[in-house]
Amino acid sequence: MNGAHALIQTLVDSGVDVCFTNPGTSEMHFVAAVDDVPKMRTILGLFEGVVTGAADGYARIAGRPAATLLHLGPGMGNGLANLHNARRAHVPMINIVGDHATYHTQYDAPLQSDIESVARTFGWYRHSMRTEDIAHDAVDAVAAAMGPPSQVATLVLPADVSWGEGAEPAAPRASSTGAVVADDVIERIAKVLVSGEPTLLLLGNRANDEASLCAASRICTATGARMLTEVFPTRLERGAGVPAIDRMQYLSEFAVSQIGALRHLVLVDAKSPVSFFAYPGKASDLVPDGCDVHTLAGLGDDVANALAHLADLVAADVEPVVAPASRPDRPTGAVTAESVAAAVGALLPDGAIVVDEAATSGLWSMGATAGAPKHDWLTLTGGAIGIGLPLSVGAAVAAPGRQVINLQADGSAMYTIQSLWTMARENLDVTTIIFNNRSYAILNMELQRVGAAAGPKAIDMLDLSRPNLSFVSLAQGMGVDAVAPSSAEELTAALERALREPGPHLIEAVL
Amino acid sequence: MNGAHALIQTLVDSGVDVCFTNPGTSEMHFVAAVDDVPKMRTILGLFEGVVTGAADGYARIAGRPAATLLHLGPGMGNGLANLHNARRAHVPMINIVGDHATYHTQYDAPLQSDIESVARTFGWYRHSMRTEDIAHDAVDAVAAAMGPPSQVATLVLPADVSWGEGAEPAAPRASSTGAVVADDVIERIAKVLVSGEPTLLLLGNRANDEASLCAASRICTATGARMLTEVFPTRLERGAGVPAIDRMQYLSEFAVSQIGALRHLVLVDAKSPVSFFAYPGKASDLVPDGCDVHTLAGLGDDVANALAHLADLVAADVEPVVAPASRPDRPTGAVTAESVAAAVGALLPDGAIVVDEAATSGLWSMGATAGAPKHDWLTLTGGAIGIGLPLSVGAAVAAPGRQVINLQADGSAMYTIQSLWTMARENLDVTTIIFNNRSYAILNMELQRVGAAAGPKAIDMLDLSRPNLSFVSLAQGMGVDAVAPSSAEELTAALERALREPGPHLIEAVL
Repeated sequence: MNGAHALIQTLVDSGVDVCFTNPGTSEMHFVAAVDDVPKMRTILGLFEGVVTGAADGYARIAGRPAATLLHLGPGMGNGLANLHNARRAHVPMINIVGDHATYHTQYDAPLQSDIESVARTFGWYRHSMRTEDIAHDAVDAVAAAMGPPSQVATLVLPADVSWGEGAEPAAPRASSTGAVVADDVIERIAKVLVSGEPTLLLLGNRANDEASLCAASRICTATGARMLTEVFPTRLERGAGVPAIDRMQYLSEFAVSQIGALRHLVLVDAKSPVSFFAYPGKASDLVPDGCDVHTLAGLGDDVANALAHLADLVAADVEPVVAPASRPDRPTGAVTAESVAAAVGALLPDGAIVVDEAATSGLWSMGATAGAPKHDWLTLTGGAIGIGLPLSVGAAVAAPGRQVINLQADGSAMYTIQSLWTMARENLDVTTIIFNNRSYAILNMELQRVGAAAGPKAIDMLDLSRPNLSFVSLAQGMGVDAVAPSSAEELTAALERALREPGPHLIEAVL
Repeated sequence: MNGAHALIQTLVDSGVDVCFTNPGTSEMHFVAAVDDVPKMRTILGLFEGVVTGAADGYARIAGRPAATLLHLGPGMGNGLANLHNARRAHVPMINIVGDHATYHTQYDAPLQSDIESVARTFGWYRHSMRTEDIAHDAVDAVAAAMGPPSQVATLVLPADVSWGEGAEPAAPRASSTGAVVADDVIERIAKVLVSGEPTLLLLGNRANDEASLCAASRICTATGARMLTEVFPTRLERGAGVPAIDRMQYLSEFAVSQIGALRHLVLVDAKSPVSFFAYPGKASDLVPDGCDVHTLAGLGDDVANALAHLADLVAADVEPVVAPASRPDRPTGAVTAESVAAAVGALLPDGAIVVDEAATSGLWSMGATAGAPKHDWLTLTGGAIGIGLPLSVGAAVAAPGRQVINLQADGSAMYTIQSLWTMARENLDVTTIIFNNRSYAILNMELQRVGAAAGPKAIDMLDLSRPNLSFVSLAQGMGVDAVAPSSAEELTAALERALREPGPHLIEAVL
């Protein structure tokens, strides 16, 4: 078999059986070979930011990586912003980047560029140079992606390595749950917790699943410590029956008061908190003065095991405190960010996945859904906007039968608006709610916060109302059913219908 | 004044008075400072691929760089594909990439990434570290961008360098037309030309303006040499009264027969011809066996002067052969790629700018416009699709009063479809004609050419008909007038109206 066939078979054998694609000429043998491996599902995106963001959403829900198929350096470049988001969240992903044939690169043809220098900025990298090595390179790529720590892995596939004959699939490698944290580390932190000194558990990354939250809740209940999750959790399990946890505030001045006075900060697969941006005269490092920082478990560790062990030490007979079931009433009156949140809270189905890129408009959405049936909450992990729609594509592919609700800011939506077409093509159960405030509202706020005086040209640069965008037209242009309700009642009815009817829907909430 | 103010004033003083922007928090002081410099025009794009492609189109027509304003590494990443195209075409551009404050980078906040490694892949790079240096850094960036050889220059602007006080504008530096080519080089090539041996002049980059084409035509007329331009010229002047020149064929087997038997190849600001992609069993290097390659003038040279000198040596009294005026009839019947080309040929206004990203559908467009009034032709220079719409934005900004006609493939259009909004916002005289064949048609062809057998999953990955895209809806969603004519007559009337009425229009040609 040729290199492409062996590569795809190896990926499938390793559990990587979904590939989000945007191919070009150098990937044509890979494209042809997907029909030789029936188990590989290929999903086309019209833009690479859709492809990489979808692979991210898939991995967050499936717990294993998807592959992407990208066209040389520029194709990978188009996917870079969402690769950045995946890197910051340690999401596993395997990029197959097609390249010129190995003997063709000496001619520096127009599409040639330095793929390696770019790819190494976001993760593991290998340039496969021989057809007989491609399957083993793929096994290495999967192992690198899975970690722990998990990461983005990029495998460059030259056209002649792909079309060359004589390849064979390689056997998959066993995966690991991470290094066991040493007993003395856990015991030392147990002592801190039982000391009664003001202590905060900061949970991140893999410590936001229900089991980890239960362990953390038991620890806090037993010791009086508090717990927070990071500003932008990768995947947070929440809802009725799951311990509730607040996200650290995005704005540093609010985060400082939320963290409060502390003697100890315990990091559980989380980074020490810092301000998202620097501002004149404001702190960048958010750890209070005199606070000791302890790491229970980090990126390469078995986090679940460490948390369970710690809970057994300090809270053996203590039960977690879980969120009670409760829903807001169906909203009435005007379409506002608050009434949209209430509609979502009133209707959120059991097992839903909420993809939250609502920015300033999302203020009420977590509160309104705190007592809704159990669901997952996915956020913008790396600050590179344009993730919400693609993340929804990937989450829906990973979880057929679960409803995906995408709370989506207007400005951010426009970066990867092409995602809607893939939702229609794959008939994905995604309901996108666009908060259309016709502004980069967060930047208007930031413009004031940085202390910069704003004139008309500056204000115009943050304004999306000239002309107004119609997300209904945009969605219809890509085959997605769309409405723009004129009241909260209409919006709630539209959401109810969207959740009932299969396939993608878009609801434009003009604020 | 603060660093941002001094930077913008210095750019304007250096002739860089248009900035295509997509800012974020770290660029807020730059945003605020644009109001302090009335001569700086800022133009918002909803996606960075629009921003960088527009700066490319602007520079091709204006002959001087625009600036871009991009938000950290991910913002630059979103612009990477069109930065690649600009790099391959040696188009001058100045990227201002905002970054975290210098003291904030130690905290590795979510939006931090390795900007330098990425930026160095496409051109000149500097990370400005002090407010008092920013203006001089800007002068260096402009000089680097202008060359020759001209290039993309990236200046990273940390937030505290931007907001810091005590900066002053710096004086602009004089620009150069390039190194004068030595007489003996020109004389040696003159001897080759008068030898009567089969010789081809390959014109590229800056050698495609009217003066260069006239000199080349005189040389060919006098000596019997032939001339071609590169596959994807950056800016080709053509039409009635300008010497006609064929583009080298994209497909290598056609290029080989077009080049034919040769004893000498003379490169005039062009690279030696190579196949765009490698194919099993086909040549990558397109220079015929036994052909000597001579370079008249390269990237850093004064090309116009060298060509004029050469023409004086071998064709002192010879006139150039120019294309006669002629137009096709207004087309009738079905909407086809051919009838669209005829409509454009029949109506192309004097001084128009044609932006050609029509891919397979553009086969007839150059023939149909060969005798139209003088116009410029801009193409996809680096193979990274998604350039046509942004290039049109930039060309229209550079040339108010000239009509821009964008011949645009459907698949490629979707990468930077957000450009339509900027066209509406700035009321640009751009008429976009979408060739909607509901397919990545060029890839279907390439799939066959690489010799790969295609099954249903492979074919599905190149198909854009499930669901069909409506470019009329997409355009209307972004405030652009749009129609989908059902006959060639209707299409011609729609084009006539679009060229008459100010502002942007979109015509969807469903093929």
